[in-house]
Amino acid sequence: MPEQTTTAARRGRPGNDRSDVINAAVALFNQHGYEATTVGMIAEQLGVSKSAIYHHVTSKEDLLASALDRALSSLEGMLAEAKESGATPVDRLERTIRGTVTVLIEELQSVTLLLRLRGNTDLERAALDRRRKFNVSVAELMNEADETGSLRTDIDPGVATRFVFGMVNSIIDWYRPGGPLDADMIGDHIVGVVFDGLRPRS
Amino acid sequence: MPEQTTTAARRGRPGNDRSDVINAAVALFNQHGYEATTVGMIAEQLGVSKSAIYHHVTSKEDLLASALDRALSSLEGMLAEAKESGATPVDRLERTIRGTVTVLIEELQSVTLLLRLRGNTDLERAALDRRRKFNVSVAELMNEADETGSLRTDIDPGVATRFVFGMVNSIIDWYRPGGPLDADMIGDHIVGVVFDGLRPRS
Repeated sequence: MPEQTTTAARRGRPGNDRSDVINAAVALFNQHGYEATTVGMIAEQLGVSKSAIYHHVTSKEDLLASALDRALSSLEGMLAEAKESGATPVDRLERTIRGTVTVLIEELQSVTLLLRLRGNTDLERAALDRRRKFNVSVAELMNEADETGSLRTDIDPGVATRFVFGMVNSIIDWYRPGGPLDADMIGDHIVGVVFDGLRPRS
Repeated sequence: MPEQTTTAARRGRPGNDRSDVINAAVALFNQHGYEATTVGMIAEQLGVSKSAIYHHVTSKEDLLASALDRALSSLEGMLAEAKESGATPVDRLERTIRGTVTVLIEELQSVTLLLRLRGNTDLERAALDRRRKFNVSVAELMNEADETGSLRTDIDPGVATRFVFGMVNSIIDWYRPGGPLDADMIGDHIVGVVFDGLRPRS
């Protein structure tokens, strides 16, 4: 093997930046589980050497932390925007639901990783804690919408929040990129069911 | 240790039948994962010897098969009843949704096991295949309700089915036995959201 190729392989191929390494790692974590995935497998997936991976990240846990932070930061950023949008509580709730759908689809692999965490380590528990805070904020929006009379009174807002997350989070189980549905269409469908249900309005 | 106690331990304590062994196994499978659970852990959980376990079942895989069959048979039996109830398609759909909630809550641990399967073995793939057939039957009920004009026309029935399963299956993540909500109340809430949504009807 010519020296030039070896050096290129060691340093990582052109176009392989930290973000590519995280993407490859997250896909493998989701496929094989975090424990069963090795840095060697990530290197093989990218067609580079292990040391090329360590050029970008310090450890496998560093990759997990970065992936979870990306998923959580996207969700938190979207929520902050929706909350500051100045609309009514029910509008802010609707924006948040649509925004969550968009983040799930744009960050499908890292959000899948987040949603499947079991809380086995301090790092995982910290991520689950941030996820819980996000969920609580959405539940607060649901409560605000309820208190301002925008929701029917016979359904508990806490249970309604669970159902909304059930619908939104199911996306990771059935959505396939490149299929007939995009984030906007899925957002329309979810908002349609959540607020108006499947029965035709006469 | 007196001989009597030893014999009792070997044969299983009074009240430990095959069903108790399956229950203990399923709880441990859900907690630690199927691979990480040993027959020794199941025996310890029940306070009996390993040979007492083998008095009831032939292998760990036998326990997994029995647990999955229990979850699937409950779902299939409920579905058959709902389909033969002679009501309109949308009524049959509503009965099926309520029935699925009831089975999930009555068989919480075995359905949790089923919903978390990854399809690693032939046994798991066969169970996932039965689960898929159940899902297809529910999708057919949704289509029938749609074709008879009982559902709004701007929401795809296939996507609506995904959302219903998203809501119903989320129960395994948040429902805790002994809490304030029972199966009927959760069924009312789900049916309420699915058909009429959260916005008050004027």
